Amino acid sequence: MTGRIEPRLLKGFRDIDPTAMERRVYILNKIEKVFRLHSFAPLFTPTLEYLDILKGKMGEEADKLLFSFTDIGGREVGLRYEFTISLARYVAMNPNIRFPFKRYQIGSVFRAEKPQKGRFREFTQCDFDIVGSSSPIADAEIISVMYDVLNELCISEFKILMNDRRLLFSILEKLGVMKDMLLKASRLLDKIDRVGKEGVIKLLEEHKLLNESIKKFIEMSEPTTAYRDVMEEFSKMIDITKEVEEFTELMMTVNQMTGNDKRIVYSPALARGLDYYTGPVFEVVVEGVGLGSIAGGGRYDNMIGIFSGRDIPATGSSFGLDRLEEVLEKKNLFPSELGRPYCLVTIFGDETVKYSLDFYRQLHKEKIPAEIYLKPKNIGKQIGYADSRGFRYTVIIGPEEAGADKVKVKDMRTGEEKVLDKDGAIEFLKEGL
Amino acid sequence: MTGRIEPRLLKGFRDIDPTAMERRVYILNKIEKVFRLHSFAPLFTPTLEYLDILKGKMGEEADKLLFSFTDIGGREVGLRYEFTISLARYVAMNPNIRFPFKRYQIGSVFRAEKPQKGRFREFTQCDFDIVGSSSPIADAEIISVMYDVLNELCISEFKILMNDRRLLFSILEKLGVMKDMLLKASRLLDKIDRVGKEGVIKLLEEHKLLNESIKKFIEMSEPTTAYRDVMEEFSKMIDITKEVEEFTELMMTVNQMTGNDKRIVYSPALARGLDYYTGPVFEVVVEGVGLGSIAGGGRYDNMIGIFSGRDIPATGSSFGLDRLEEVLEKKNLFPSELGRPYCLVTIFGDETVKYSLDFYRQLHKEKIPAEIYLKPKNIGKQIGYADSRGFRYTVIIGPEEAGADKVKVKDMRTGEEKVLDKDGAIEFLKEGL
Repeated sequence: MTGRIEPRLLKGFRDIDPTAMERRVYILNKIEKVFRLHSFAPLFTPTLEYLDILKGKMGEEADKLLFSFTDIGGREVGLRYEFTISLARYVAMNPNIRFPFKRYQIGSVFRAEKPQKGRFREFTQCDFDIVGSSSPIADAEIISVMYDVLNELCISEFKILMNDRRLLFSILEKLGVMKDMLLKASRLLDKIDRVGKEGVIKLLEEHKLLNESIKKFIEMSEPTTAYRDVMEEFSKMIDITKEVEEFTELMMTVNQMTGNDKRIVYSPALARGLDYYTGPVFEVVVEGVGLGSIAGGGRYDNMIGIFSGRDIPATGSSFGLDRLEEVLEKKNLFPSELGRPYCLVTIFGDETVKYSLDFYRQLHKEKIPAEIYLKPKNIGKQIGYADSRGFRYTVIIGPEEAGADKVKVKDMRTGEEKVLDKDGAIEFLKEGL
Repeated sequence: MTGRIEPRLLKGFRDIDPTAMERRVYILNKIEKVFRLHSFAPLFTPTLEYLDILKGKMGEEADKLLFSFTDIGGREVGLRYEFTISLARYVAMNPNIRFPFKRYQIGSVFRAEKPQKGRFREFTQCDFDIVGSSSPIADAEIISVMYDVLNELCISEFKILMNDRRLLFSILEKLGVMKDMLLKASRLLDKIDRVGKEGVIKLLEEHKLLNESIKKFIEMSEPTTAYRDVMEEFSKMIDITKEVEEFTELMMTVNQMTGNDKRIVYSPALARGLDYYTGPVFEVVVEGVGLGSIAGGGRYDNMIGIFSGRDIPATGSSFGLDRLEEVLEKKNLFPSELGRPYCLVTIFGDETVKYSLDFYRQLHKEKIPAEIYLKPKNIGKQIGYADSRGFRYTVIIGPEEAGADKVKVKDMRTGEEKVLDKDGAIEFLKEGL
C-alpha cells in the first residue's frame, strides 16, 4: 500500500545534501561567532504564528507571500515569512525586556510566491537587530557586524553601501518630489542596480517623477568614500544641513568601528525595498558574482512598537544563507578540506574486531574524528571505500598489527604507510587535524 | 489600524528567551560535536512535505498528529512531525547515495496533538541514523554516540537500557502469546516505567495476554548488566539460542565501544513505543529527575525502503532538546558563566567616543566578546547597567584614561579596578576568558 507513494518534493522546496550542508554549517558557525563576539544573544520564536500577527504591516501582498491555513482549532495561522514581525510581538509580550535588546535569530522562513531560479519557498535567514536605541552607534554596530562577518568569511571584494532615508527623502522632496510620492520614487530609485541609471531615469519619467534636478542627482549618485564632498555638492542645490550632520556622524562612527575601510561607501540613491525603514539603510554587494545584495538592513523606528502601541526604535540587518553560500562557492573561499572525512578504522576479521573497536574508542576520546568500517571485510575493499569517500587517513589493523599492539596508518593522499604504536598513531593523527 | 492587533502566541507554541536559548545552544554544540566526531554528516530536508509522504507508515493517528493543509497550489501538505520519513524519502530520491549513510538532522518538528505540561507543538529533535547497514556494529555505534553525548554533557546518573525486539518477541511467543498479539503485548510491556510491573501484569490480564510464565518473565525483568545470566535463566524455559547469540554479540560490541560501562544494561521487557522497530531497541533514562526516557531509538529495517520498494536496513536514535535541557537544569550541570556577558566598554562623552570605539574594535580583533554602551552617559549609570546585566568586566575610558592612552578595567565581581595600557588590558581580558 505505502509502497506506491511517489517520493517527491514540494515545488520550491529542497533537500540539502551533506556536502552543501557542510558549507552552510561552516558559514553559520562563522556568523554566530561574530554575533556573539558583539554580544548579540539568540532568541527563538515559533515557526507558526497567528495570521493577523504575521500580516502586521504587510499590505495586500500578504495573501500571495504567506503560507497560511486554518488549524484544527479553527485558528487562522501562517508560517513566518521573516523574523522582524515576531520580534515585535515578542517585545510587546515581554515589557520587562532591558534595552538595548541585542538579539539574533537564525532559521527557516517561508514565502509562498512563485519560486525562481536560486530562490526557494523555505530558506535560511540570519537576522541580528538592536531594539531600543536610537543612537547612531547602534546603526554603526550593525554595520560593523556585517563587516566582521564578511572578513571572517574571507570575502574581500565587497562594498557596504550606506545611505539615510531621511537624507534621501529630503533631497528628493527639495528637488520637487511631492511628499506622498517619496516612497514611490525611492522604490524606483532602488532599481538602479538592475536597470541602471538610464533605466531609472526612464521609469521616473514614466511615473511623472522626473525633473532636471532629479536627473542631475541621479547622474551624480555614484557609490563613494568621499561622502563629505558629494553631500557638499548636493548642498549647493538645496539645504540639507540637518540630514548631512546626522549622516556624517554615522559615517564617522562606522569608519571608526571599521578602521576607515574604503569599501564602506556612501550611495546617494540607495533606498532599500522595504517601506518601513526610517533612517540609515545599508546593503552589502560583492563584486564579480552576478548577485544582488547579499545582506541589507536599516533603521526602522516605527515597526517594533506596532503591537505595544509605543514607538520603540530599532536597527538591524540580515544575511541570506543561500546568497552567502553562492558567493563563497564562486569565489572559491571554502576551506579545501571542508567536509572531508578524516580517519577510517578498518576491521580485518572477527579476531581483530575487539582491537579495532578499542582503538576507535581511543580516537574519539582524543577528539579525533573517525569512522569505523561496519563489518569485517577484505582490507583492500575497505581501503577502496576510504578512497572513494575521500578519507584523509585509513587505520589498518590486521592480525599482525594487533598481535604487536600496533596500528598501520595509511595516508590516502600519498599512499604512504606507517606502522606505529597506538600512542604514536594518536599523536600523528592529532597533528594532521 | 495595526495597533489593535493583540500580541499573542498560538496555543502550544512558545518563544525561547536568550537565557534559555544559551542553554540550548550549549547543548546543541556538544551534541553536534559528538555527531561529527563519529563521522555523521548534516542533512537538511524541508519543513513542509506532501501529506501522503508524511503519513507514510502512520495509522489513523496521522490526522490528529499532523499540521496539514491545502496550499495555494491545491496540494495537500503538512509540517513534518519527525525526520525519519523524510530521510526515507531522501534515500529513495537519491539512489546513488553511498552506504553506510551516516547523517544527522537537528531542527523543529511539529505535533498538532493537545499540548501537555512541558510538551509543545513545535520542538527540537536531534536525530542521527545509519542507513544501509545491518551490522550490529552500526547499532553499537548509535549507542556509543548516545553514550558520548551524555558524557560530553557531564550527565553521570544515567542508564542506557537495551533490548532486542527479536529476542523479546521470541520469548513472548514461546511463552504463549499469539504472533498477531506480539505488538499489542509489547506496547503494554512498555508501560512498566509508568505503571510498574504489577500494573503491566494487570493490563496484560485485562487483555487476556497473561499466563504464569509471562508473569514470571515480567517479574524477572530487571535492568541488569548480567545479561548472560538472565538470558540463561530464560533459556531454561524456552529455546532462544539464536536470539541470545545475536543480542550477546551486540552487547559485547557495545561494551567494547564504551569501556564496559556498568550503566549500559539489558532490560528484558523494553519494547519502545514505535511499531516499526525490527531489532535492537534502546533508551536513555536519567535518575532523580522524574522524567521518562530522554533519548531512544532502535533498528528499523523495513522503513527506509517504503518509497523505494526495496528493503534498506537502518538504525538510529534521537535526543529531544527539551528533555535534555530539563535534565541539565535539574542536575545543575550548566556552566555557571553560561550566557553571562563578558565585557562592557563605556562611552564617557563626545571627546572620548573615538577612543572607546577604537578599543572596542581592538577587543573584537582579539576575539574578546564585548558590548559597547550605545551613547555617552554618566559613567555611574553605565556601570549600573553592566552590573544589572551581569557583565564580568567593565572597561572605563574617561578623559584621563584616554589622555594617558590607557583604560581602566573594573572587575564587576570584586569591584577591583586596574588602570592598564591597552595591550595590558587586552592580555588581562584574554586571561579571563
